[in-house]
Amino acid sequence: MRLVVVYDISDNGDRQRLASRLLGLGLTRVQRSAFVGRGGYGHAKDVYRFIQRYVRGEGDSVIIFVVPDESFERALVAGRPMAPLAGVARVVV
Amino acid sequence: MRLVVVYDISDNGDRQRLASRLLGLGLTRVQRSAFVGRGGYGHAKDVYRFIQRYVRGEGDSVIIFVVPDESFERALVAGRPMAPLAGVARVVV
Repeated sequence: MRLVVVYDISDNGDRQRLASRLLGLGLTRVQRSAFVGRGGYGHAKDVYRFIQRYVRGEGDSVIIFVVPDESFERALVAGRPMAPLAGVARVVV
Repeated sequence: MRLVVVYDISDNGDRQRLASRLLGLGLTRVQRSAFVGRGGYGHAKDVYRFIQRYVRGEGDSVIIFVVPDESFERALVAGRPMAPLAGVARVVV
């Protein structure tokens, strides 16, 4: 299983602390507000517990999807993410 | 199945055109750079074909994940997304 973590955090400090925390939890940054990593619902709940404190702004949110490896391996990617989705070939459709 | 579309687009005009296009394709905006919607790989490829033209900047990217409904229904959500993930109860862990 894999985690896909996406977020909207308005406060610059909280957003940077959240990103550092996600890196510390072993996730990989693929876009400014999107991280991915290995793990199932147990890891997702750990991540959730750590990041809640940074979700303070009116329109702030974090969404953690737990997806099967296939969703990852068959993801369609255009352009150049900040890091490659490990195991995903560039897709030319 | 569901689509999760996340993007980093540097040019303001391209970013707005991409967002409008995703809305036009029936997707729902849940964060500034994240859309979701119903559909499988066929719909994902359609979306991919439409949005490639907006991925022009050096560090721009769009990633389209196709995930099972369960990944959606069991997503962990902190804060207030721009629209509710249809079918996902607010999760208190």
